[in-house]
Amino acid sequence: MDTPEHISTAFEARDPAFAARVRASFARQRIMALLGAELARIEPGFCEIQLPFKEALCQQHGFFHGGVIGTIADSAGGYAGFSLMPADASVLTVEYKLNLLAPADGDYLTARGQVIKPGRTLVVSRADVMVRKDGRERLCATLLQTLMTMHGHRDEA
Amino acid sequence: MDTPEHISTAFEARDPAFAARVRASFARQRIMALLGAELARIEPGFCEIQLPFKEALCQQHGFFHGGVIGTIADSAGGYAGFSLMPADASVLTVEYKLNLLAPADGDYLTARGQVIKPGRTLVVSRADVMVRKDGRERLCATLLQTLMTMHGHRDEA
Amino acid sequence: MDTPEHISTAFEARDPAFAARVRASFARQRIMALLGAELARIEPGFCEIQLPFKEALCQQHGFFHGGVIGTIADSAGGYAGFSLMPADASVLTVEYKLNLLAPADGDYLTARGQVIKPGRTLVVSRADVMVRKDGRERLCATLLQTLMTMHGHRDEA
Amino acid sequence: MDTPEHISTAFEARDPAFAARVRASFARQRIMALLGAELARIEPGFCEIQLPFKEALCQQHGFFHGGVIGTIADSAGGYAGFSLMPADASVLTVEYKLNLLAPADGDYLTARGQVIKPGRTLVVSRADVMVRKDGRERLCATLLQTLMTMHGHRDEA
Repeated sequence: MDTPEHISTAFEARDPAFAARVRASFARQRIMALLGAELARIEPGFCEIQLPFKEALCQQHGFFHGGVIGTIADSAGGYAGFSLMPADASVLTVEYKLNLLAPADGDYLTARGQVIKPGRTLVVSRADVMVRKDGRERLCATLLQTLMTMHGHRDEA
Repeated sequence: MDTPEHISTAFEARDPAFAARVRASFARQRIMALLGAELARIEPGFCEIQLPFKEALCQQHGFFHGGVIGTIADSAGGYAGFSLMPADASVLTVEYKLNLLAPADGDYLTARGQVIKPGRTLVVSRADVMVRKDGRERLCATLLQTLMTMHGHRDEA
Repeated sequence: MDTPEHISTAFEARDPAFAARVRASFARQRIMALLGAELARIEPGFCEIQLPFKEALCQQHGFFHGGVIGTIADSAGGYAGFSLMPADASVLTVEYKLNLLAPADGDYLTARGQVIKPGRTLVVSRADVMVRKDGRERLCATLLQTLMTMHGHRDEA
Repeated sequence: MDTPEHISTAFEARDPAFAARVRASFARQRIMALLGAELARIEPGFCEIQLPFKEALCQQHGFFHGGVIGTIADSAGGYAGFSLMPADASVLTVEYKLNLLAPADGDYLTARGQVIKPGRTLVVSRADVMVRKDGRERLCATLLQTLMTMHGHRDEA
C-alpha cells in the first residue's frame, strides 16, 4: 500500500523475550502442525507465517481453502499483536474480516501480519497473504482484525 | 435472533438436484476431511456442518482455533448460497467477517449457514457456530459473508 | 433469520433507567438531528432508529448513501448494547461491517439493532436496515458490530 | 503500513477523463454537501476526501460520529475504485468494514482511499482516515471495502 508516512509501524516490544514467547505459543497451536504452517519471522508488531501446499488443504477447485488462508492470516496478525503485549498477558482474537482477492493457486502461502494500532486493551492488525507460483508472489488475501489483550493471563501450557 | 417477519428465509432451489450437487462439492473440499468435518444438513439456502473436537484443531489454550471455526462457518455459509445457484455455476467466497463470541471450549462444533440475500451475481449469507459442552449448545461465533456466483463454471472435479 | 432457539435475545437491563439514559445520549448525537433520524424504540438489548428520506442524504443515484445507512445502523446496534450497560458506563464502537443488500430506494429507513452477545467489556450487536417504498418494507442492509463498554465513564454532556 | 514491495499500487486509468468523471459523481452525492466534505485529490486508484469539523457531525462525546467517518471513508475507497472503471460503468459499494482506532477528536478529517485489487467485476479498496488536531495528523480509522463495477450503467444524473 501507499503508506501515509504519519502511520508508524515501528514498534518497541516491552517484553525483551517477546520472540521466544511468541514461538512457544505458536508451538502450542496444534492446528499449525496439522496444516504444516511454520513461523518464519517475528519482530515487534510483525509476524510472518509460511504454509506449503498440500492437497489436504484444498477447497473443491484444488486451491488453498479460504478458511486455511484465514487461519494463518489470523495467527499472523494475532502474533504480531502478541509480540507487543506484556509478558503476563495472552491474546484473544475478537473478530476479523478476510477478503479473498485472487485464487490461492500456488505452492506456497506467506501471511504477513502487522499491527496498525496497539492499544492497551484492544490491538488492531492487518495481514496480507501472498501465494507463490512459478517463483512469483501474488497478493491473494487481506485481513483486518481486532485483538484483545488478556492482562494477567499468561499464555502457557 | 429476533427475526423481523419481513425477512424471508424460505427459498426455493432452482436446481432440483441441489443437495447432491452440494454434497459432491463438499466431498471435494479436502480440508473438510483433514479437519474431520461433516455435512449434516442441506436445504435450499441453508447448510449445517458439524465438527467433533480433536487436539489437532486447537489454538494455544486447547480450544478450537478461530481459523477452524472460520473454515467451517465459511463453508456452511458458502454451501447455503451454492444450494440456490443454478446447476452450471460454482461459488466463490468474496469475503467474510467472523466474530468470536465465546471460547470454543467443547466437544463439538455446529456451523449453520443461512442465505439472507440471494442476488443473481452476489449472495450474502450468515452463519452461526455453536459449541456443545456437557450436552449444552452455546453460540461461540457468527459470520457475515459475501459470495459470488460463477455462472457457466460448473463445480466439478 | 431462522433463529436457532438456543440463541437467546431476551435480556434484562441492569440499569432500570436505561431507556432515559439511551434517549439522553441519542439526543446528544448531533449528527442524528442533521440527518433527521429519530429514536423509535428502545428495549433491553434492542434499539430502533427511523430516518425519513431527503435529497440531502443521497449518493449519486438518488438513493440513501451507504454511509448514512451505516450511521443509523451503527447507532441502532450501539444503543442496543448501551441499554444493557451499567449506569456509570459509556459505549464505544470498536468496529463494524456493513453489507449493502439492495438499493436503498424508498421514503423511509428503519434500522433495528439487537445485541447478540453481551460481554462484560465487549458487546456484539447486529442491525438490519429496512427501506420502505410504496408501503412495503425490504431489507437493504445488515451490520455486524463490536462495541466496548467504558466502565466508569458515564455518558454525559 | 509496511508495504510488501510486491503489492503494486500504481494503476493506470483506462478512461482518460476519469478525474472529471469522479468529480461529477462526487458533486451528485448530496450527502457530501450536507456534511461539508470536499474531494481533495483524485488519481488512478486513489482518492482523498477532507471534512472540517462542525458540531452537527458529532456523536454524544463531541467527536466526529463513527458513521460520518464511515461515510467519507466509503466514498474515498469507492471513488478510488471508480477512477479505474471504464467510462460507461458506475460503482456500487457491496460491503465495508470500519475499525475505529482512536477518538476522532480534532478539527479536520482526511480519508485516503486506495485500490488494492482491481478486478473486472469486483474491486477491493482500503481507506485510512486521519484526524488533525493542533497541526498533527493521527490515524483514527481504517476501512476495508468491496466494490462492484456496474458495466453499462453510466454514472449520471
